[in-house]
Amino acid sequence: MKNPVFVLAPDSFKESMTAKEVCMAMEAGIKKAIPDAVCIQVPMADGGEGTVQSLIDATGGKIYRETVTGPLGNPVTAHYGILGDGETAAIEMASASGIHLVTKETKNPLITTTFGTGELIKACLDKQVNNIVIGIGGSATNDGGAGMAQALGVQFLSQDGAVLPFGGGALGDLAKIEMSGLDPRLADVQIFVASDVSNPLCGENGASHVFGPQKGATKDMVQTLDANLAHYAKVIKEQLGKDIAEVPGAGAAGGLGAGLMVFADAQLKSGIDLVVEYTGLEQKVKEADLVWTGEGSIDFQTQFGKTPYGVAQTAKKHGKPVIAVAGYIGEKIDVLYEKGIDAVFGILPHPMDLEEALQTGAENVERACENIARLVNVK
Amino acid sequence: MKNPVFVLAPDSFKESMTAKEVCMAMEAGIKKAIPDAVCIQVPMADGGEGTVQSLIDATGGKIYRETVTGPLGNPVTAHYGILGDGETAAIEMASASGIHLVTKETKNPLITTTFGTGELIKACLDKQVNNIVIGIGGSATNDGGAGMAQALGVQFLSQDGAVLPFGGGALGDLAKIEMSGLDPRLADVQIFVASDVSNPLCGENGASHVFGPQKGATKDMVQTLDANLAHYAKVIKEQLGKDIAEVPGAGAAGGLGAGLMVFADAQLKSGIDLVVEYTGLEQKVKEADLVWTGEGSIDFQTQFGKTPYGVAQTAKKHGKPVIAVAGYIGEKIDVLYEKGIDAVFGILPHPMDLEEALQTGAENVERACENIARLVNVK
Repeated sequence: MKNPVFVLAPDSFKESMTAKEVCMAMEAGIKKAIPDAVCIQVPMADGGEGTVQSLIDATGGKIYRETVTGPLGNPVTAHYGILGDGETAAIEMASASGIHLVTKETKNPLITTTFGTGELIKACLDKQVNNIVIGIGGSATNDGGAGMAQALGVQFLSQDGAVLPFGGGALGDLAKIEMSGLDPRLADVQIFVASDVSNPLCGENGASHVFGPQKGATKDMVQTLDANLAHYAKVIKEQLGKDIAEVPGAGAAGGLGAGLMVFADAQLKSGIDLVVEYTGLEQKVKEADLVWTGEGSIDFQTQFGKTPYGVAQTAKKHGKPVIAVAGYIGEKIDVLYEKGIDAVFGILPHPMDLEEALQTGAENVERACENIARLVNVK
Repeated sequence: MKNPVFVLAPDSFKESMTAKEVCMAMEAGIKKAIPDAVCIQVPMADGGEGTVQSLIDATGGKIYRETVTGPLGNPVTAHYGILGDGETAAIEMASASGIHLVTKETKNPLITTTFGTGELIKACLDKQVNNIVIGIGGSATNDGGAGMAQALGVQFLSQDGAVLPFGGGALGDLAKIEMSGLDPRLADVQIFVASDVSNPLCGENGASHVFGPQKGATKDMVQTLDANLAHYAKVIKEQLGKDIAEVPGAGAAGGLGAGLMVFADAQLKSGIDLVVEYTGLEQKVKEADLVWTGEGSIDFQTQFGKTPYGVAQTAKKHGKPVIAVAGYIGEKIDVLYEKGIDAVFGILPHPMDLEEALQTGAENVERACENIARLVNVK
């Protein structure tokens, strides 16, 4: 193969390498085997952890840090990114309001707030962007996005006109939503929520029942939180004329999905589709002889919107072969072959524990990709 | 690729699978990817452990069991094989006289004997074969092959005409070698010793100094054993007219190499070359589109006569691509690329300990080979 063109579009290897670092290791291995290979690095993500980093790396953008209000009201340092196009911002809600910012002892979805996520949106508005992509995985909150809206100027008031405190536990007292203070710049910005969750806001499949327990909700708390979100939806419907109770995805991130739809007119989109779009992956794939993807862990669940699946779908539109590498190959990867991933290779050279695997990720990706490239080249 | 022809020529994966079992797993994986692939199984070995099994499996031969004299004089059940051609036998000396048949407490090269190996040769002669291939790795002995010769009718006598007892410790008393009882059938049989050891019988690089300690010899014992082998060589030269002291390989297996050359007119040959020859690998490789090899462990030392190296050399004579799989990929495998192995793939799907790797070998080989075949097929 003379000067083959390879698109390198892996996700991060969690706790081991960013997607960009995986790209670097892939290219190093490939170039050992085929020195004149043309490698186009497209660090990917699926809307989850690492999405901002990958979008920045893929587009030549920049990360900004900002002190915002954490889930428990304390200040935390969060980050967001401005993509290489200068007009698109990327946020991960977890950076401001994530479960990793509370402890086993302090996690409490009755009081945790998405206020910091709203502050990050505000920081993006200050940068005069036209689009904001928000990844909403890993939240510590169950406040229906009320905190986020508060940060952007919305007031949630009780019967006696008092401002509601933070958290999903207070929403039962909601009597009045005051929209006049809402940041007017929101009207000129398109917000996309990267979400692969289709849960509604309330009920058995709603935010509180399905995701509440992992955020620290007891059985009683789940009942309270669910009732409060139902009340919240009812007040929104009555006063703002928007019915979000049954909208698929409204229950994502403790109802932040609903809040973003109501107060920021956001659109929910598949995370991997958003990343494919903003990285320009499809255009790059058109030129490729072979598309390389990968993720720390690959198994049958990869077909449910994970990066290697999205990359494969994009590649297959143009009839391109796709190979994937992984540190952990799990069960039933056979289903992936039908989804456009032509072959999956483990990267481990020998038996080792997880810690060693995480520490030797780069060299292992490099060696595996070198040998895959050698095989590709020999034929 | 329409009906591709694959030659599958792996070694065993030690403590996990015989070479035949590796072939089966390879074929199962390949056939999942390319159902109409033609797979030619050639279980391989390099003269070491598993050589008899592989030669039997590769040629459709049969294993026979025989109770013989173990290294310490006690009875042990050893095995040998008759290859599919019906006229070639295969023996591993370790089966009768191996280090695994002694313990840390009982290992003692002053007294351990190769008598059982001679009995195995005799059993092969009873089967009226024309050739015997003997693998000599893993010996517990340092008797210069005297025990082997005794079993075949040679008498080693002391000055006063007494028969010497077993072991390298007695050879210092050797005064007379009585050849009249030597099994006459040996004259009609060609014996090949599979050996990659080039050590001479005596001296600093000889059997006693280099291999004695791992068989339990103390420093004093090494001196005695070395002096005794020198005396043994001297008596052989004087009485039989054969000078073996400096012959490369005479020091293999505690001098069994020398004994086989003197008393059985054996030829020493590289183990992998013998296996390549008796399996008919080269003829089969000529028809292959791709040659698959592998071994439990592959590293830079693979180039020193291990199976994947020998398979690659054979394949390269005919310009065939070679891929290898391994459970353990060690250091500096880059050197193998220049030796004809085009690509090396690890088979492990995820971090695990050695025990799990050994237990899941077959499924891991199958999965890896399926994906290699998928990549081969996609291009």
